[in-house]
Amino acid sequence: MSRIPATIAWIAPPEGPAVRMIDQTRLPGELVMIDCRTVEQLCEAIVSLRVRGAPALGCAAGYGLALAAHLSSAITVDQLVEDLSRARATIAATRPTAVNLFWALERVMAVLDVPAEDAHRELSSVRDLRGKVLAEAELIAADDLDRCVRLGRYGAELLADGANVITHCNAGALACAGYGTALGVMRAAAEGGKRLHVWVDETRPLLQGARLTAWELIQEGIPCTVLCDNMAGWLMAQGKVDCVLVGADRIAANGDAANKIGTYGLAVLAQAHGLPFYVAAPLSTLDLDTTAGTEIRIEQRSPEEVSLVAGRLREPITPTAADIYNPAFDVTPAELITAIITEVGVFAPPYEKAFCGLQT
Amino acid sequence: MSRIPATIAWIAPPEGPAVRMIDQTRLPGELVMIDCRTVEQLCEAIVSLRVRGAPALGCAAGYGLALAAHLSSAITVDQLVEDLSRARATIAATRPTAVNLFWALERVMAVLDVPAEDAHRELSSVRDLRGKVLAEAELIAADDLDRCVRLGRYGAELLADGANVITHCNAGALACAGYGTALGVMRAAAEGGKRLHVWVDETRPLLQGARLTAWELIQEGIPCTVLCDNMAGWLMAQGKVDCVLVGADRIAANGDAANKIGTYGLAVLAQAHGLPFYVAAPLSTLDLDTTAGTEIRIEQRSPEEVSLVAGRLREPITPTAADIYNPAFDVTPAELITAIITEVGVFAPPYEKAFCGLQT
Repeated sequence: MSRIPATIAWIAPPEGPAVRMIDQTRLPGELVMIDCRTVEQLCEAIVSLRVRGAPALGCAAGYGLALAAHLSSAITVDQLVEDLSRARATIAATRPTAVNLFWALERVMAVLDVPAEDAHRELSSVRDLRGKVLAEAELIAADDLDRCVRLGRYGAELLADGANVITHCNAGALACAGYGTALGVMRAAAEGGKRLHVWVDETRPLLQGARLTAWELIQEGIPCTVLCDNMAGWLMAQGKVDCVLVGADRIAANGDAANKIGTYGLAVLAQAHGLPFYVAAPLSTLDLDTTAGTEIRIEQRSPEEVSLVAGRLREPITPTAADIYNPAFDVTPAELITAIITEVGVFAPPYEKAFCGLQT
Repeated sequence: MSRIPATIAWIAPPEGPAVRMIDQTRLPGELVMIDCRTVEQLCEAIVSLRVRGAPALGCAAGYGLALAAHLSSAITVDQLVEDLSRARATIAATRPTAVNLFWALERVMAVLDVPAEDAHRELSSVRDLRGKVLAEAELIAADDLDRCVRLGRYGAELLADGANVITHCNAGALACAGYGTALGVMRAAAEGGKRLHVWVDETRPLLQGARLTAWELIQEGIPCTVLCDNMAGWLMAQGKVDCVLVGADRIAANGDAANKIGTYGLAVLAQAHGLPFYVAAPLSTLDLDTTAGTEIRIEQRSPEEVSLVAGRLREPITPTAADIYNPAFDVTPAELITAIITEVGVFAPPYEKAFCGLQT
């Protein structure tokens, strides 16, 4: 299992209520835990990417509702539902692309679906519902860890002993409740005795690869080498890559996958070099209501992430007058994806058919 | 013509002898000129990329020999030739990939080819040779500017009015004596009344695109937008790019072109999206002695360029234990290059045949 502390966890009273998380903006320099004690603090942490990664955002959303429930002064179920609806709207407004966030909000809100005649029940019912909300949030996190471990075992079968794998961004323990998706597959392969070497795209602008993925792999003792994103093609041309393995933020019903900006380019390069391109994601990342990738809303982020290098500089790398393009994600079309690795097995194209009837 | 001061110039006594250049590591924050007063200072400037770009390295090499000639205390031609041979070896050891550097060294050394019976001639001959060395270095710079302007006119024909061009690294006035190669083509098109928009790859690790190309384009009033290198594919997928236009550091006889790391990936992406991929370079960048790109030596540079973001950070973006890959160049095979733009015209494949009989 992972040698890294829990990415995100619930802290009960009296120390809490709080949502404790690794502040990922401080890595790899320092491993700092922060406690979010209000929904606003939690939302700031999401927007600032202190917590990031689709499955971890699901956990954060769940715990965010648990926090709202614990902070609520409601004395009727109706009031609690109203407070939680407000918290849901606030959390939903943080980041648009990762579906897990919305999926978790809906999943937790569903426990509030009490019969109308019970809606005016009093304090004991409210306390009961608070407990249920927290239990559901805890279940999301536990489920996520479990899904990653199962997904890892399926995916490990695809990696040959001695494989050179390239990955982009961080789809690791830090992006989930733990263990990781793409990095979970690598962990499982390494635990199974396979020797891997991982090429880690630094992943501009926010450097999640250089900062987080390299850190995780070093913690796990899996050999890795960091490169600038633009070097991946040249590595492939020299025969130094055996496959691409990445996570996803949202997968449409046809298999199109939104993931960190740069993933699409890597998929095109993989195809041009005849290399398999694998996406690892739990079913909570599947969005069967979205027919195709063209419908996925892509978050545009601040130009300063590029010009100030993830907030690490005071003087921009660009002239102050420069326009800057900064989409956070891109969409890799299904036809470039060799397989999608999930906790219920490995799916091959056509994904539309493969996903048919799945319960996410 | 360019609104930017000369990238590199000779400063005569009494202010000199010196080689004056824009310190490109200080851009875009500050426009600072530095004077190299010894060959060692000049070599440090080359290695540290204060001056960079294949044609500009040719100019620097020529002026470097002129500086050595002026600093030499030789009183016979033999002694001067000996001093210059030593300087040539020192300059040649700075950077291996750009052929222009070696081409310029050979071109200047050729003026020393005096008949053996003259080799013991005295002071007046030595003074005469010093003048010839400087004249040849000045000619290289003047020639380069002239080549860029002519190349620009040929290349401009390839750009449609309203075109969205993507470029990588800096193949501008700063990379040459002035005007630029790839950016010279854009300048010529803009001067001819064409409206362009340029997508500028930031060009990790040393950010020549974000720092230098964006700065030049803004000086010229050509609209541009900076992006992270990994965003280029997604731009192309959205139909936001009409062509790729880059420079080169060395072009083999078969048309394979070495250029800044990341160029190869951009060429693969261009082909996958059906976009033309143009290389702009003066004939001094052609190396007809090199049969194919596989023979080109690729410079590997320090890992700190990646981890400390071009020397702008004190704390690395990677864990301190991380391995880092940092080749300075890659090679784009001729079959991915739609055309090579030179000062004598635009060449189309097969390049081996097109280049046949050319005098570089």
